[in-house]
Amino acid sequence: MTPVITFLSDFGLTDSYVGICRAVIAGIAPAATVVDLVHTIPALDVRRGATTLADCVSVAPAGIHLAVIDPDADARPGVAIRAGGSVLVGPDNGLLLPAADTLGGATAACRLSDPRWHRTPVSPVFRARDVFGPVAAHLAKGLDLTTVGTALPVDALYRLPGLDAHIRPRRIAAPIRNVDCYGNVQLTATQADLRRAGLDSGRPVRVGTATETVELPRVASFSDLASGELGIVEDSFGWLAIVAGGADAAARLDLRSAEAVSLGDD
Amino acid sequence: MTPVITFLSDFGLTDSYVGICRAVIAGIAPAATVVDLVHTIPALDVRRGATTLADCVSVAPAGIHLAVIDPDADARPGVAIRAGGSVLVGPDNGLLLPAADTLGGATAACRLSDPRWHRTPVSPVFRARDVFGPVAAHLAKGLDLTTVGTALPVDALYRLPGLDAHIRPRRIAAPIRNVDCYGNVQLTATQADLRRAGLDSGRPVRVGTATETVELPRVASFSDLASGELGIVEDSFGWLAIVAGGADAAARLDLRSAEAVSLGDD
Amino acid sequence: MTPVITFLSDFGLTDSYVGICRAVIAGIAPAATVVDLVHTIPALDVRRGATTLADCVSVAPAGIHLAVIDPDADARPGVAIRAGGSVLVGPDNGLLLPAADTLGGATAACRLSDPRWHRTPVSPVFRARDVFGPVAAHLAKGLDLTTVGTALPVDALYRLPGLDAHIRPRRIAAPIRNVDCYGNVQLTATQADLRRAGLDSGRPVRVGTATETVELPRVASFSDLASGELGIVEDSFGWLAIVAGGADAAARLDLRSAEAVSLGDD
Repeated sequence: MTPVITFLSDFGLTDSYVGICRAVIAGIAPAATVVDLVHTIPALDVRRGATTLADCVSVAPAGIHLAVIDPDADARPGVAIRAGGSVLVGPDNGLLLPAADTLGGATAACRLSDPRWHRTPVSPVFRARDVFGPVAAHLAKGLDLTTVGTALPVDALYRLPGLDAHIRPRRIAAPIRNVDCYGNVQLTATQADLRRAGLDSGRPVRVGTATETVELPRVASFSDLASGELGIVEDSFGWLAIVAGGADAAARLDLRSAEAVSLGDD
Repeated sequence: MTPVITFLSDFGLTDSYVGICRAVIAGIAPAATVVDLVHTIPALDVRRGATTLADCVSVAPAGIHLAVIDPDADARPGVAIRAGGSVLVGPDNGLLLPAADTLGGATAACRLSDPRWHRTPVSPVFRARDVFGPVAAHLAKGLDLTTVGTALPVDALYRLPGLDAHIRPRRIAAPIRNVDCYGNVQLTATQADLRRAGLDSGRPVRVGTATETVELPRVASFSDLASGELGIVEDSFGWLAIVAGGADAAARLDLRSAEAVSLGDD
Repeated sequence: MTPVITFLSDFGLTDSYVGICRAVIAGIAPAATVVDLVHTIPALDVRRGATTLADCVSVAPAGIHLAVIDPDADARPGVAIRAGGSVLVGPDNGLLLPAADTLGGATAACRLSDPRWHRTPVSPVFRARDVFGPVAAHLAKGLDLTTVGTALPVDALYRLPGLDAHIRPRRIAAPIRNVDCYGNVQLTATQADLRRAGLDSGRPVRVGTATETVELPRVASFSDLASGELGIVEDSFGWLAIVAGGADAAARLDLRSAEAVSLGDD
């Protein structure tokens, strides 16, 4: 069976950083299939990377999921985390745990402390090339998780705060999960969350941003919206998303770099 | 023999949509070699995608060609089309037929109506992930075309109008096929078309745009043009292209979003 | 063993040129693992491509290294160069030799003169598709270097001038090797070069640009710099780099398109 390694980072597409990591991986595991999930996560934005990774791994095959957004390389050790039939590899800064949750929860973890699986010398400014990538490649070739370094209780892994929706009667505080290039605003809130909040009456939902409140209809698909009309759909991952018919909803509501919206009925 | 899947879309490079499709494909056919042809076709531009795909498949190996530009997902069923030794997979909105022509013409087609080869549930807003990608992966693993769904007469496939050159004596109406990042303007017209129109005298060709008419020399290569000089070359696919020596011909003639030019001798 | 082909070019990411080359390679060597190193080298910038390729191959596995930046296709023949256990394929315009040096030096070279390994007809404007790509794919499948065409003395290969640091007592003229998307300015000069010039006293280094001279501290890592503070680090390839704490050093010093800086102590 060909092993699969997925790869997500904030390295961008205009430098050779991704290519260098892939070259190193190919040197260790040339027969592995490497799938670039996305490398244009906003620089150093661990939060955005964590939610994106969680969605991606939900549809990816069991395998190795390499993810690197590494603003505090000095402070955060590298880890490998087992979840479901997969192993997540990257820094212990909160990037990996939401994906582990999606895969059923972290069941084991190890620090990447055994230098046998690293390139040497390890550069402090490019751990993806020297530590994360090589370890991911060795794991894809069959190395056991417990061999990459000292075991770590999964409770000790760092978890980012504030990623979940906050649900009260008739009001949801919904973190913005992602804004795609079309301006669709993906929320960390589901249809079930609307139901739990008593907001599933079928009436329009009131969406509050930092500067305004708008009433948006729930629709099944983009084609139910007139050109430029705003609405709320269930996206392909089951999240609620604020979209506009043939237009950029994030621009219309100034949400491209916002952190959350409120959903309510008054 | 390693199966090859080529992949073209308008998903862009800044979101995880391409990566998600490739992860799904890797889950079904991890040993397939997936070649990203291009994912930066202008959003929803089926026409531009169709001509680009036709050129790409002419040099690609026999295999599966997955192409997704899907503005009318509700109205256009998914199809698989056999042409030459390849199978094209995508929406039946005109995107695939010019490529089928390049491969010798469509010889069989099926709707993607059998849900056994889809991810479930199918999201109406991401058929590439749930239908087109999975079907392409299964076909790459050896699934027979006739198994993907109900057969469809190839005559019933939707064909985009206006993709061909219109040739009269001393005048060609030539659709613009593509404009690349350097500003080279590829036309759907060939040297043979010039001959048929009686425009192959060796004299400069008069090129008419929406706003001006210019006389351009026929040259063999970029190196025959002075810096900034406009000319017409035969490009690497045999199409006539308006180019400029070290400069952006599309910008010079305001053709980046134009649809056609006229070629004549007066 | 799965053969590995790395691929670097200036084709950009918005056209299908890279995809077309990869499709052609997949047609010849479908089982090869192709690693895109980077395709966003500034158009026609052979110098920038040469230094980037040299760094990339230093971490890549032995294999075939395909590199195409081809501004003078008429004047420069295609070549294949053996270096270490690898073969470099591309135009003989200086792009490949620094990488050969990194791999231990060129030990054999051949012109790509045997048309058996080319697509026909060869387009003069797309040698990557018709010559370089196909030859690289055949080499990956096991074709011997000496079979690609007539042998060439390695001394006859074209070498770009001015790529090395010029070192005198207390003064180094250091070419700018690369500027990445974060604005980090990589220099062709090492810690050992500072030592040879007598500039390793531990005191700040005076960096001279076209318009100003600044004193920059030597630091171990980004985390040693205050926000916006400029400094010099040793980067992950052992080169000195001018960086800024959470900021764009190239913008601060107007070095994005500069060619060199001076390093000194007065």
